[in-house]
Amino acid sequence: MKIGGRDYRAIWRTPDDAAVEVLDQTLLPHRLATKRIETLEGAVEAIKTMVVRGAPLIGASAAYGLAIALRARDDEAALDEAYRILLASRPTAVNLRTALDDVRAVVQHLPAAERGAAAWSRAGEICEEDVALNLRIGEAGFALIEAAHRASGKTVNILTHCNAGWLATVDWGTATAPIYLAHDRGIPVHVFVDETRPRNQGASLTAFELGEHGVPHTLIADNAGGHLMQHGRVDMCIVGADRITARGDAANKIGTYLKALAARANKVPFYVAAPHTTIDWTIEDGLRDIEIEERDGAEVTHISGLSEGGAVVRVAIAPPGTRAANPAFDVTPAELIDGIITDRGICVPSKAALAKMFER
Amino acid sequence: MKIGGRDYRAIWRTPDDAAVEVLDQTLLPHRLATKRIETLEGAVEAIKTMVVRGAPLIGASAAYGLAIALRARDDEAALDEAYRILLASRPTAVNLRTALDDVRAVVQHLPAAERGAAAWSRAGEICEEDVALNLRIGEAGFALIEAAHRASGKTVNILTHCNAGWLATVDWGTATAPIYLAHDRGIPVHVFVDETRPRNQGASLTAFELGEHGVPHTLIADNAGGHLMQHGRVDMCIVGADRITARGDAANKIGTYLKALAARANKVPFYVAAPHTTIDWTIEDGLRDIEIEERDGAEVTHISGLSEGGAVVRVAIAPPGTRAANPAFDVTPAELIDGIITDRGICVPSKAALAKMFER
Repeated sequence: MKIGGRDYRAIWRTPDDAAVEVLDQTLLPHRLATKRIETLEGAVEAIKTMVVRGAPLIGASAAYGLAIALRARDDEAALDEAYRILLASRPTAVNLRTALDDVRAVVQHLPAAERGAAAWSRAGEICEEDVALNLRIGEAGFALIEAAHRASGKTVNILTHCNAGWLATVDWGTATAPIYLAHDRGIPVHVFVDETRPRNQGASLTAFELGEHGVPHTLIADNAGGHLMQHGRVDMCIVGADRITARGDAANKIGTYLKALAARANKVPFYVAAPHTTIDWTIEDGLRDIEIEERDGAEVTHISGLSEGGAVVRVAIAPPGTRAANPAFDVTPAELIDGIITDRGICVPSKAALAKMFER
Repeated sequence: MKIGGRDYRAIWRTPDDAAVEVLDQTLLPHRLATKRIETLEGAVEAIKTMVVRGAPLIGASAAYGLAIALRARDDEAALDEAYRILLASRPTAVNLRTALDDVRAVVQHLPAAERGAAAWSRAGEICEEDVALNLRIGEAGFALIEAAHRASGKTVNILTHCNAGWLATVDWGTATAPIYLAHDRGIPVHVFVDETRPRNQGASLTAFELGEHGVPHTLIADNAGGHLMQHGRVDMCIVGADRITARGDAANKIGTYLKALAARANKVPFYVAAPHTTIDWTIEDGLRDIEIEERDGAEVTHISGLSEGGAVVRVAIAPPGTRAANPAFDVTPAELIDGIITDRGICVPSKAALAKMFER
């Protein structure tokens, strides 16, 4: 997608093919800077420090990290060590393991001398596959937006939560792919962007990427969405997902569930956009079986932003010593979801429908 | 209630009876400072700059402001001018007008020389009446908390939103009065405090006052409440209200409605605590008839807090130029409210029940 009128991806090869570059997402939206990754250590550091974030982008970065490691040292021990170090860089990210397993499977039976090039090539394919997946999600969701516009003749107002945008993937994003396609094809869309406390991914990333690509949007406090839906100002919600169960319960950023409740109460369609790889076929009851990560309370009691002097500073917003709870995700039960927008089409969230669409 | 082990009210007379003092709430929770109000201008300034905030406290402050003005100049013109200036200091606060009308009615037929003393005395009574109202709310709500504790034998977990605490009133607060009474009487309570974006009254004021009084509490992002209710970690919600319609719809800080939806979906009792003066008998349909104040979007895009260097600084959390919408309140429909905790007891939110309890 575009930044400052120029096309970007969230990860790309340098022209000499010697390294990859990424946007340093820890500095967004206050500073636009790229980071060059040319060593295994550089890849691990970028993942660990959240220079890259978002499950698909972490996977792509790890794949390139493994390729870079194998181009430097191609023996069996190097492969094992690089795999192990990269896997440990963000232990809970499922795409990280998937991408590493993928690259390892491609190279492990090759002669050592061929491994670096093969891994490099496979990492590039993983990126292209992510883009293709997101575009298919985009096409499926685009049909919903186009239909809403055709029905009303007006701008389609879409509420989203957190950042399931192109910055979390290689390009297009998941929840945002339908929005970008609609915008690029001339369907008038406007996005209400939940700021998404406590980490503010909506305010810092979604508002940034929509703004740079030219998609009309309005930032709102997470508290405001229910009021907007009560007053008919939201036509649909589209959010991403970190994990979807076999029956269609969806774990996503904390606060998603509250928006799903408001959407149902106000007859606003609520969609979850995610590639089929997000579905965890081993569990059904998301509320019971998805463990919710509890993060540092300091993310609630403190907040970072750009001071008037131009420095990024961290400020306390609560009395010193205040205890805070910080569950990072919540689970939206399938019955509150009107459809799961996948790379194979839109699926009703039920065990039977999901199994049928994905031929399980 | 207590701060640092000492009993406070939100407004009090100086020992020499020459002025009143208030806590400077613009500095909380980062600095505890009092402000002396000894002139009409001082009172207006304290209200305008939100040194005092919360409808009951604004009313009490305005009453004292009028008394202070009349002690300095007691002629008819002075009364009219002080009334007018104070009324204009926060145009939408209904308690402001009520308090000013109250004091004016007491003094306007008195000889000029008696006005200052009579107004001063009436302002004091207005404060005592607020304390008494809140204590009656507290007693009504206490019964709910006590019953919940008796039923479970465990700590009662209460979720609240925004600050309907003693800092918004003269003492006790509205939503907090039942909590303070329960705590002071040895019922184990624990409060989940919504931070309440965008102005963070939960993080800065409710967490502060509960902490200083010694009430166990945990600060949470506004997004977290639904998840906590899904997992049975909230026994009841108690929130305040800015306006309640004749049928029991309640306007309160933005985001209240989302918590009411989550409470209903998870069978958590949802209570609104407010004095009977909050009921606007002229309207029924809150969603249709309560106009929602739209505040400056900068409250969403920027946030203030205490820097590591100890200065209160304002930081941007969104890209420059981001448009933000900032509705300040939302309306929770009566059907989502289990009871309105008033100074006359707990009322089912229906037109008939409210009319009967308040003999309309």
